[in-house]
This record gives sequence, C-alpha cells and structure tokens, in this order.
Amino acid sequence: MKVVYVSYPPSDAVDGDVPASAESALGLHEYLSERGHELVTTTDTGEGLDAELADAEVLITTPFWPVYLDDDRMSKASNLKLVITAGVGSDHTEPESAEQHGITVAEVTGSNVVSVAEHNVLQILALVRNFVPAHADARNGGWDVAGVSAPSHDLEGKTVGIVGLGAIGARTALRLKGFDVRMLYYANHRRSPADEETLGVRYARLDTLVRESDVICLALPLMEGSQALFGRERLNAMKPGSWLVNTARGAIVDRDALVEAVESGQLAGYAGDTWYPQPAPADHPWRSLPEGSEAMTIHCSGMTREAQERIAEGVREMLDAHIDGQPLPSEFVMVSPGA
Amino acid sequence: MKVVYVSYPPSDAVDGDVPASAESALGLHEYLSERGHELVTTTDTGEGLDAELADAEVLITTPFWPVYLDDDRMSKASNLKLVITAGVGSDHTEPESAEQHGITVAEVTGSNVVSVAEHNVLQILALVRNFVPAHADARNGGWDVAGVSAPSHDLEGKTVGIVGLGAIGARTALRLKGFDVRMLYYANHRRSPADEETLGVRYARLDTLVRESDVICLALPLMEGSQALFGRERLNAMKPGSWLVNTARGAIVDRDALVEAVESGQLAGYAGDTWYPQPAPADHPWRSLPEGSEAMTIHCSGMTREAQERIAEGVREMLDAHIDGQPLPSEFVMVSPGA
Repeated sequence: MKVVYVSYPPSDAVDGDVPASAESALGLHEYLSERGHELVTTTDTGEGLDAELADAEVLITTPFWPVYLDDDRMSKASNLKLVITAGVGSDHTEPESAEQHGITVAEVTGSNVVSVAEHNVLQILALVRNFVPAHADARNGGWDVAGVSAPSHDLEGKTVGIVGLGAIGARTALRLKGFDVRMLYYANHRRSPADEETLGVRYARLDTLVRESDVICLALPLMEGSQALFGRERLNAMKPGSWLVNTARGAIVDRDALVEAVESGQLAGYAGDTWYPQPAPADHPWRSLPEGSEAMTIHCSGMTREAQERIAEGVREMLDAHIDGQPLPSEFVMVSPGA
Repeated sequence: MKVVYVSYPPSDAVDGDVPASAESALGLHEYLSERGHELVTTTDTGEGLDAELADAEVLITTPFWPVYLDDDRMSKASNLKLVITAGVGSDHTEPESAEQHGITVAEVTGSNVVSVAEHNVLQILALVRNFVPAHADARNGGWDVAGVSAPSHDLEGKTVGIVGLGAIGARTALRLKGFDVRMLYYANHRRSPADEETLGVRYARLDTLVRESDVICLALPLMEGSQALFGRERLNAMKPGSWLVNTARGAIVDRDALVEAVESGQLAGYAGDTWYPQPAPADHPWRSLPEGSEAMTIHCSGMTREAQERIAEGVREMLDAHIDGQPLPSEFVMVSPGA
C-alpha cells in the first residue's frame, strides 16, 4: 500500500522540526515501514503530486497546506481509497466527487477544538484592545500612548455574536463567559435552554446577530450555504466600527468586500486565521489591510504542539483501521461511499 | 487655584484625540475655567514642569507618562497640596516625602481593573500561542506554518501562577477560569476557601508557584518588597521554557536579568506592558528581545477608551471634593498627611 503525505515544509526559522510537517510526517515513516507499507512525503500540491497519486491508496493532507481535490484529480488517482485530513475541515475535498469515485474522506474530529477556541479569544482581544499597534510601537522605539489608545477598548460589556455553535463555538463561548460580555449565537440547530445557560449565550436570527454585535466570531464549517456568507451586503449590515474574527474558513468571507469594509472604516478591524486559497499568495489583499485594522495570522490556530499530537494519534487510529480492513471510527468519517 | 495636568502628547497617527492626553486633559479645561481655576497642561516632566509646579496646588499625572516626584522636587513645589494619579499605581510619587511635605496622594482606584485583567489574558495567549510571529508572517507574505507552530501551545492544561490577587489578579483569574487551566496564586493575604473556589485558584508559596507554573502573571503593586522581585535567581527558578507576563510595573522585574533569561531560552517569552522608566527609552533592551520571544506593548493596558472615561470621572470627583474643602473619597487616597 502506498500512502502519500502532503504538508508544509520544515522551517529554517526554528531549531528542530514540527511533527506535522512534510518531513516529520506525524511519525508515519517508522509506523508504515514497520508494517511494510510505502510512504511518500511531499510539499507539492500540483502536478508532481498528481504523478504520486496515480498509484496511491491513501492520501493524507492538512487544512494548513491543503490539496484541493476535485473530480478531475480523483479520476487520475484510480487507486485512491481513503483521503485523511490531518486536522479538521475537509472542504478542500469535493464530497460528491469522492462519493462517486468510491473514496472515503475522514478527518481528526475534535483535534482542533480547544486550539481554535483559544485562538478566537486571542484574536478578539487583539482587535478590540488594539494589540498590534501597541506591540509595533514597543518594537519601534516609540511611546505613542495616544495613538495606541485611541482605538483601544475593553471587551467587557460588548456584544459578541458567534456564528455557528458546534464544538468550537461552544468552547469559545465558555472561554468568553468570564469576560462579562453579552453573547448571541446563530446556528442551524438551537441549543437547549440548559446548554444556553451553561455557555452563557442567547439565540438570535443571523440578521439580528449581525446588527447587534460589536464583535462577530465565525465558527461554522465551509459548505454550500456558508460560501461568502459574509459578503458586501452582510458586512455593511454589521454595526459600524465593529470587529470580525474568522478562524473558520477564509472563503466564508468575500475577499474584496472585506477589504472595502475595513478600508472604509465600516469595520474597525478583521482578524482571520484562514485564507483562500492556501497557502495565501504573497499579494493576497488581506495581508495588507490598513495598519491597526487587522490581527491576521497565517493558518496556524489548529497547529499547536498539543493539536499536532492529537492529529498524529487520530491519523494512526484511522490507518490502523484501514490496514486491518476495519471501518474507521465513525466520528472521523465525512464521506463514506456506499454507506 | 492652579492645577497642572501632565500627560502624553496627542498623536499624529490617529484622527481626533484621546481624553487623557495633555491636550484634551480629561475635559478639565472647561471644568476648571467654569469654576474660576487655572489649568496648565504639559507633556514636560523635567525642568519646565518644575517651573510650573512652583506655584501649583494640584498636580495630575498618569502612570503612562509619569512625573517622578521625589523629595527634592516636592521641596521646590511649596504650594502643592494634592497629587492625583490619573489612573492606578502611584509609585512614581515617593510616599514618605509626600507625607513630610503635607501632600495628599490619590489615584482612581478601580479604573483600570477590567482593562488590565483583559490585557493579562491577551498577553498570556499571545505568548503561549506564538501570535507575534504568526502575525508577522501574515504581513510579510510568508506561509511558514512549521516555524510559527514549532513554539505554539494550547493554554489548556497549563499551570498559571498569579502573583498578587487583588482586584486585577482576581478578575484575571475569573477570565482564565474558562480555559481549563490549573491556577495557583501567591498573595500576602490568603483568600477565603469560598473566594478561592469562585476564582478557581489555589494558594501556593511564592517558591512553589515559581517552580510549578508554565505561565506567571504579575498582578501586584510596586513597593519596597516587590522591587526586582523577579531578579536573576527567581527567573532561573522558573520552569524552563515558561512564560512571564507583567502588566504590573516594569521595576518588579530586573531589566538585564530578564534579557538574559529570555536570550538563554530559560524563559520561552516575556510580555510586559509596563517599563522602567517611562516613557521607555528607544534603546530599552526589552524593545529588542529576540523575535518570537516577546509580546510587549507600550504601557496602554489601563488606557482603553472605557478606562479613560472612568479615570476622567474619578479625577473630577476628587477635584470636586478638593474645591469644596471636603475629604476625598477614602478609597482613592494613598497618602493622607496628618490623618
């Protein structure tokens, strides 16, 4: 069996490597060779990869350096039976095409929940409290307290709207609860009153949430209904001077409409961890939002050392099952052809 | 009556001004002129200020741009009766000298509590999750996921030690409680078991806290006993690779010992909002800690717009009392000569 692992390259910036890079490959070199299987690791997501996929049975790809898999590519990978997302969010793989080609798609459900919830709180605080300019001034030798303070606010007392209240949204709410904020949420399925009380949230229609929130935090998957959900019209319906945080998926926000909303001051700031496509091109306009109006990160929220350990464990659990001809743990399976 | 207000200059970087700058002076221009009193505002904390203080009755100064007031300066300000700190933390004013010169020292107790507690959580998350390099990479056109992730961790499951558990420490604990961390605290006075349970904290001796904490957060005032409390020996007693956050006062940490501890890797990172002296000189070594090992801000944690409103209200309340010959609200008074 041939397994292809596609991920980001190791870094020159740090000593040692991280487990999920293409080089370390979650420790799969040893794991697979011990079991007599072949592992190919690469950072190539283009034509070089297609050549490798032609006879591969398993592809492992990460949301942080995704392989965009459509019908055409799957057609060329005639031996492919399993695509594992080393992380959470398999939107880079077309689910209908996978179904048609008999390819199972699975991900490490839960591996990123706490990590992304923490990142949400970090990026909310960074925007609302104007951290980036305050940090830049410290580095640059300045002491412009007035300039740094002018757009700086307490989070306390603000209304935070969480769009999507799955595992990540809920853990985010639990972390924000201590900040004495008012929390609204919108989700397809309303939680029980007991859940809402535990999480400190109140249900609202999306339009209401958008209109009333000082901070909006996106915590929903990318799917047909959420593609560009925050387009020009919805961004303009947000409270003037409010903030938007998006650790979910870049494509949930319309790229150019977001730039306009930030440049016009309709939004006070945007903090995104996710981009489209990924890796984001060097000239992606979200990289050059006006200074003091952003707290962007490259996609790393679900890539802490602890998250990588959870991912490595989940991937091995799936490979164990696949090698033994057993069904994958059901909570991991996103597309199950013929099931 | 002559009142002197000393603060930071307005900023060229933003439209409009902020209430607490030397120019806006918390709205005191109108307030004092209506009551027939003189207001002088300045950014000068040196000899020019001494000339103004010679016949001033009230001095208002902020921790963000402090007037360092010692016996010598007070001797020259023979008419001075009241020094108000527009903010919290009056350590820039020598209390014994004030007492001897019959000068009351007061501050706006409580005005910064929520603001600084939020800043603590922000700076903890920024360090532990390695935000600064992840942000820099987003701005610089990079996509070094491995480099950004290598030193990035979840806060969940870590031990956070809070040194000082007054109003700020307690509000910080309440905000951290939702992060599923283990919290230790050290303080002169141990809280009741009920308080400890509400805050989610456990009491520890300082040595134990220092040894066991992954993150240490300083939340105690600067006083004789806390001057350089985190010197070389204590920094070396910290857990290797741990993080230190200091929004309290810069002088609680030994400047050069901190640089050594970060450069050697004994500490994984330092995030401070406070410096000594202030404004920090352009060549202060904390401005150039190794990249990826710091999340510094210029002193602004207690300077959000909301904090400035609380400060403005408190200062007017004190001036009202002083003008009317009434005692200042007791919770504001730090030094009360002859009382």
